[in-house]
This record gives sequence, C-alpha cells and structure tokens, in this order.
Amino acid sequence: MAKDPQALYEKLHSLSLASTTLHSIESLLHWDQSTYLPKGAIGFRARQIEEISHLIHKQHTSPSFRKALNALIDIETGEIVYDSLDKRQIAALQRWRKDYLHATKLPASFIRKFASDSSHSTHAWTLSKEKNDYKSFAPHLQKMIDLNRKKADYLGYKEHPYDALLDLYEPDIFTAQLTQLFGHLKIELTSLVKEIVQKFPSAQGWKECEFPKDKQHIFLKTILGRMGFSEDTFRLDESAHPFCSGLHPKDVRMTTHTYSHDPLNAIFSTLHEAGHGLYDMHLPEEHFGSPLAEAISFGIHESQSRFWETIIGQSLPFWTHFYPVLQEHFPLELKDISLPQFYRIVNHVKPSLIRIESDEVTYCLHNIIRFEIEKALLEGKMKVKELPEVWEEKMRAYLGVVPRTDAEGCLQDIHWSLGYFGYFPSYALGNLYAAQLFGAFKKSHPNWQDNVSKGDLFFIKEWLKENVHKHGREFTSAELLERITNSPLKETNYINYLKEKYNGISKA
Amino acid sequence: MAKDPQALYEKLHSLSLASTTLHSIESLLHWDQSTYLPKGAIGFRARQIEEISHLIHKQHTSPSFRKALNALIDIETGEIVYDSLDKRQIAALQRWRKDYLHATKLPASFIRKFASDSSHSTHAWTLSKEKNDYKSFAPHLQKMIDLNRKKADYLGYKEHPYDALLDLYEPDIFTAQLTQLFGHLKIELTSLVKEIVQKFPSAQGWKECEFPKDKQHIFLKTILGRMGFSEDTFRLDESAHPFCSGLHPKDVRMTTHTYSHDPLNAIFSTLHEAGHGLYDMHLPEEHFGSPLAEAISFGIHESQSRFWETIIGQSLPFWTHFYPVLQEHFPLELKDISLPQFYRIVNHVKPSLIRIESDEVTYCLHNIIRFEIEKALLEGKMKVKELPEVWEEKMRAYLGVVPRTDAEGCLQDIHWSLGYFGYFPSYALGNLYAAQLFGAFKKSHPNWQDNVSKGDLFFIKEWLKENVHKHGREFTSAELLERITNSPLKETNYINYLKEKYNGISKA
Repeated sequence: MAKDPQALYEKLHSLSLASTTLHSIESLLHWDQSTYLPKGAIGFRARQIEEISHLIHKQHTSPSFRKALNALIDIETGEIVYDSLDKRQIAALQRWRKDYLHATKLPASFIRKFASDSSHSTHAWTLSKEKNDYKSFAPHLQKMIDLNRKKADYLGYKEHPYDALLDLYEPDIFTAQLTQLFGHLKIELTSLVKEIVQKFPSAQGWKECEFPKDKQHIFLKTILGRMGFSEDTFRLDESAHPFCSGLHPKDVRMTTHTYSHDPLNAIFSTLHEAGHGLYDMHLPEEHFGSPLAEAISFGIHESQSRFWETIIGQSLPFWTHFYPVLQEHFPLELKDISLPQFYRIVNHVKPSLIRIESDEVTYCLHNIIRFEIEKALLEGKMKVKELPEVWEEKMRAYLGVVPRTDAEGCLQDIHWSLGYFGYFPSYALGNLYAAQLFGAFKKSHPNWQDNVSKGDLFFIKEWLKENVHKHGREFTSAELLERITNSPLKETNYINYLKEKYNGISKA
Repeated sequence: MAKDPQALYEKLHSLSLASTTLHSIESLLHWDQSTYLPKGAIGFRARQIEEISHLIHKQHTSPSFRKALNALIDIETGEIVYDSLDKRQIAALQRWRKDYLHATKLPASFIRKFASDSSHSTHAWTLSKEKNDYKSFAPHLQKMIDLNRKKADYLGYKEHPYDALLDLYEPDIFTAQLTQLFGHLKIELTSLVKEIVQKFPSAQGWKECEFPKDKQHIFLKTILGRMGFSEDTFRLDESAHPFCSGLHPKDVRMTTHTYSHDPLNAIFSTLHEAGHGLYDMHLPEEHFGSPLAEAISFGIHESQSRFWETIIGQSLPFWTHFYPVLQEHFPLELKDISLPQFYRIVNHVKPSLIRIESDEVTYCLHNIIRFEIEKALLEGKMKVKELPEVWEEKMRAYLGVVPRTDAEGCLQDIHWSLGYFGYFPSYALGNLYAAQLFGAFKKSHPNWQDNVSKGDLFFIKEWLKENVHKHGREFTSAELLERITNSPLKETNYINYLKEKYNGISKA
C-alpha cells in the first residue's frame, strides 16, 4: 500500500484529540458543578452536559473516525494493517479499537439519556443525603439500575451482566474471579480486623478545638509541593465529596473537604486525590488525545491514590518529617500529642460507618459490601426499597457496626447516583495493586524510610512516574504488574503488608 | 402549505438552543480562564476554546439550521413565510436571519483561527501588562487588527470597514454617525470637565488603611441582595479585569477586583457588573436559545451597568442608606468621613489615566480616544508601534493627563487582545442610553429618591426588567428608546443629566 502509516496514525490521533478535548470540557462542567455552580443552574447544567456528551459520542463514533481507525487496525478482527508501527502505537490502536467497539454498541440516544438522568439523579442524591431522605432518591436509583442493566445488554457479556460493566472500569477482570478474590479477602480481613482491634482497642482522640480551614489548606499545599506539584498546573478546591479531575497533564484539579474540628480528614483525602493527580500530571503530554496518555484502569488509578494516602501517608517516616510541620501550623492544638501518639491515631483501626473515612484495614470490606449489593441489584435479586435494610445487615455482619441514618449508610457515596455500577471493586483492587507495587518500590529504594523521614517525597513520585504513569495505557494491568513485580496480582501481598505494618506498631 | 408554523418555530428554537448551550459552555471556559484556571493550562485552554467555537459555528451554519430558518423566513429576501406567527416570533426570525447571515459570511477556518489567536493574544496581554512590556504584546495586537480587517471584508460594508465591526456590537449605528455624535460629545464634555474641576478642585481622599477583602465581599453581597440577586443564581468572584458572564438566566457570573486599600473600586465595579447581571438574569428563560432571550446590543447592555454604577450607585439617596451600612463594616476606617464628604469623594471628577476607574464625566472621553485610535489602526492610518505615542497625545489633549507606563496607558484594557474592535463605542453609548432611560424612570417613579434612601432598590430592578430586560431582542435599540422615552437617542439627555447633577452638588 502506498499510504504512510505514520501520517495515518497522526490523522487518527488528531481526530481522537478533538473528542478528548471535548471530554476535558465535559470534565470541567462536572468539576464546576461540584465546586462553584450556582444551585439554581443545576437543570441547565444537565442540559449542557447532555449536549456535550452527545457531541463526544458523535465524534467518537463518526464514520471519519471509524475510517481512520480501520485504516490502521481491522475493526472486525483486530488485525494490525502495517508492520512498521512501533509497539506503543500498536498498543494504542488496540485500545482505540476496544473503546470504539464499546462506544458503538451504545446508541447515541441512550448515552444522551444516561448523561441527563445521571445529572438529575446526582442532584437528587445531594438533597436526599442532606435531608437523610432515602425515599426521595430511591426512584432515581432505580432508574440508574435499569439504565445499567440496559447498558450491559448493549455491551454484551458471556457469563454475567456485571462483567460488561466491570470491563468499563477494570478491563479483563470478571465477576466470577472477583467473587472468589473478594471471598478470600473478606475472610482474611475480618479476622485481621478482630486481631488488631483486640491488640489496640483505642487511640487518643482530638481535643475539642478548631483547625481553621485556611490554615489547613496551607499545610495541604506544603505536602503537595513536596510531592512535586507545581502551582501552575493544579488546583485544590473544596467540594462535598473529594475528587480529582485530570483535564490535561497541565490542568489537574483536586478537591478536598476540610472539617474545622479535624485536620486528618482533609490531609488524607488530599493525599488520596494527589495520588490520582500525579498519575494525570505524568501522562505523556505529547500523546494527549491517544490511549498512550490515558490511565490503564480505575483500579490502577486507585492504586496510585492509595499508595500515597495509606502506604506513604500513614507511614512513620512520613510523619517523622511532617508531624513537626503540622505542629508548627497548629502549635496550641497539637502541643499535647507526641509523634508516637499521632502515628497511633493516624493508624487507628476501628470498624466504622463511612467508607472514605475508614482505615486501611477495614476499607476493602466497605467496598466488598457495595460489590455484593450492586451485583444483587443488577441481578434483580434485591429490590431498591430493600437497600437500607440489606446495608444494615452487611455492615453488622462484616464490620460489626450499624448506621443510625441512611445518610451515613447507603446514601454516603455519590457513585450510584452518577450511574457508576461496577466501579467499587476498583477501589478494593487499588489496595491490592498498591501493596504489590510497594514491594517492588522497596526493593528499588531500600533506604526509602530515611529519605521520607527527611521530607523527601520526590523520588517516590519519580519511581511511580517511570514505572507506572508514563506508559499510559501501553500495558494492561496484568502486563504492568508482571513488568514491575514479576508476578500476577495476588491478594496475599496486601494481607502481608498489613500484617507486617500492624505487627510493627508497638503497643502503647 | 400544510406545515404547522408553531411546530416549525419550535424546531428552529430547539436547533438554536443547542448552539446557545455550546456557547454557554464556551463562556464557562472563558470565565474559568479568568478566575481559576492553572496558568500552565493556558495553551490547552486555547485548544478547548478553539474546538468548541468551531462546533458552535458548525451548528449555527449547518444545512439543517438553514433549512429550519428558511422554512419560516426567506433567508435571501427576509420575507416572513407565515402570517400566523406573532410579532415577537417575527422579530426573533429577523434577528436569527441577521445572525445567520453574519455567521455564514465568516469561514469556519477563520473563526477557528480567530478564537485560537485571541486566546494566545489575551495571555500575552496579561503578561505584557504585568511586565509593562508593550513590545511583547505588539505582534499579537497586529494579528488582531489584521484579523479584524479581514473580518470586515468578509462581513461587507458600504462606507467604512469599521461599520462592519460596529454592527456586531451596536446594530444600526454607523461610523459616520458616531464620528459626528462623539465629535459633539467631546466638545461638550471637555468644557464640562474643566468647569467642574474648577468648581470642585479636590476631594478628601482615604487615609492609609486596610479594608480586608473578605469584608468587602460581605458588603458587596449585601448590595447585590438588595438589588434582587438570589444566592442560587449568581456568583461573584475575583479576576484581574471585572466582567459579567451570563451563561443562563439562572447562572450569572460576575467578577470584581478588590483592592485592600480602597473599597470603592470593588463597589462600583460590582454595581457595574450587577447591572449587566440583572439584564442576563431577567431574560425570559422560556425563550432561552432564541433572540427573545438575548440582549439588544452591547450599548443597551452597557446602559444597564451604567444605570446602576453611576446614576443610582453614585446618587445621594443610594449612599444615604448604604453609607451607614458601609460604616458598620468598617467603623474605624470610616469614622472620620461624613456622608456629605463621602458623597463628594464618590463623585469627585478628575481627569485620570484608567478608563474603568474614571468618573462618570470623563469616562466617555476615554472611550472616544479608543474609538478614534481603533478606527485609525483599522484604516492603516496609524501603526501598531505608534500606539503608545498616539495614546499619550490624545490623553494630553482631551484629558490633560499622561500615563507614566504603557500598563496604565494603552495596555490597560483587555479588549484589543481579545480582538474586540468596534466595542468601545458601546461603552460611551451606554451612558447616553442610560441617561435617556433615567428620564423616563424618574417620570414613572417621582419619589424614587425617598425609596432608595430607605434602601429599597427592588422597584428599580423591576422597572428595568419590565421596560428593558424581558423583551430580549424583540425591539431594536431605537425602537426600545422610542417605546420608553418617546424619542430617538440624543446626547443632550446625558449632558443635561450631568449638568443637573453637578450643579446640585454644593461646594464643600
């Protein structure tokens, strides 16, 4: 053939960049909705999102995009047309094809309806959570379930409708495999939690005092600076539910939620979102608009946030440096708490109600509960009206605690209101990935504890960039783990990490 | 014909709504760029704006839109196809047709280039103003002039290329007419300024003290509340150059720029933007997406901002109520300034350098200078490199003051960097419209001063809503003035308003 494969690749990349650019605008609409949008404009915001989401879908499934893609990879068979492309480009083509097949299976009218309904549903969720009124949210939830079931039918699956949804967040992982993996994890964790709680029944709490929000933000920015964020390429704002929106490697927007009675919440949510943010920031800008500047999966993304939030951010070396800094910001408030006491507070394990506030040992159990519930909702084995009750039962069984209100129970997370079914397993998987990556990191930086104790975090950021971030979607999650850790995913890495850490915490 | 005209109208409205929705998203991108965008993302923001601006143009000039429009109004001749449409709908069709003709005269590639270049140019302007480095902005300005000359050629004109640009901001006003109108105004104002300055040579200034920005914002929100803004439908943020972006009647975003040494600046810029904001807020939501929910012209929009900023906001009744409120916010800072003194400060007339900080008597002269300069730049009678010098000359001749730096001279306004040529005349016209409207308002509310002295502003908002805002673009500016004031536009209304007011200010 006479065509130049590189020129064809450029053409495809440029078409894809147009959709990615629109997608980044859609992300801005969502970010703005959660931060600065006047409340009265929520209806119109839904209309705006609907419009842009329709255009993205249209561009992504357009005949010209299909033609450009098909010129390089046979869309039906997956066969690569030219040998001369390099292996990164070939990987990109395979991802583009996968996404294209996903997108073309969903009719434009369906995408449009999903976007609009989910915007309304999210608004209803916000109000119902505020008023602790599950009933007002229930019909929206039902809509979201129905839409997701329909989505699974459109996408197709072999064994379980949930497989089709999982594949959107965590490619190549299946419901049966997760059921087994989470089955093991549940047993191991339930027993580990009991053991730790017996060993360390309580930790000193905070005194009643005020930690002004603006001072908290100054401290948070200090940490972000050490992690390698530059003022020119990120934001940290307040929102009801913290999130990170990577619009572009140079426009990374994180949010947190500060509480004036407790600085820990904002610290760890910020470390969490910053883990996501670094991933987004390190995606190679020259490939922006192609899969080579996208994340592998939600679970791998989550491994980055958990790496910073728990493995690094709740380590003794981290606080050896940063606790004195925090004390400088809040000298009176923290004068009676020593570093060892603070470290015990940070790592206090206690079964609790709120997923995003839970400790790193009980955290996966929260996500396993959600996995079991959404699987059952999708199968139709459970009804929407039964949700509060089933929630209670599972909380009691796995964690031994029971919510007093639905706001701190089944209404706590935004995900279902957005129509994100199949997402929660990635949160649990993130921890398993992170622990396994941590093993490799420690081998490559045996003296990491010394460096972190001195306030150096930059080498961690660099290791993650070189090993994980800069590859974009070149590798699958399994390939990436194999490359870095010489092993497939094993939940034992995570369990052993926890056991080792909590054995190391001496009794007070 | 068998078609239902109302159904055809609905179809056209819904196509137009899609473009308007995209346009509101473009406005959000601009708003975000001026408020919260990380600096490093400016390049990508230009890309985003280019993409969306391209799509808006595409939709607005699409064959389906043309067909829908042509089914109701003959695009070539302007003839209305159905008699049964009401007169508002007919007006809407005429405006749609005018906009369509404008839009189709500009090639998509030109629109794209304009949007991208102006984004870069605005960024360059920001930096060059910060660094007082006119040379770094000059090539961008040249680009903007060339693009505007090209734009005028595309749009077409009978007498002067500037006519084509004026028509975009102030329909039905021409360069020759403006040259004459501004000629008169310049003579009248230059002599009036001298007279007033002689009469009231100085006003007491501020003492050196701090007005914390957050406290200023609380006061500003108090005024906005009285004007009828609800927290649910507007925002007030900080930006380098204050502006108002009405994304939708329920999403009105104003910005201000607070200075900690002087609260007046933010007060009057906020009143100004709030005048724009009320117009945007009162556009009839049910017609959103059609010309019936658009503003008549930039000059009429500006008349609303000047009405609030100067005619009401710098009146004695206004401060009779609000000065004691301001004193409550800043008791120590304002304890030595009485209401009469404060009123004199607010209305102090002094030829000065910065347009947006200038008093209501000298203000039009600033805009007339810009009108003369951009006309000359466009005609090629003046070169970009001569701008700083010509600026100096005109400032000296009309206002008797000379800028020390280009930052406070020809770099002070954002407009040329955005490629807005033909815009400044609307600022001057706004004052003339406002003064003429004020005459009618006083007749309908002879006791307005009593009400405003009690802090009531709501009836003003309502009068403007009923007489100006709610009509959208149903009337031309001349029709609107005739309807409300039974007279065409006359600059004498403005001159007389000024004379009456400044005669009323007794010598201190």
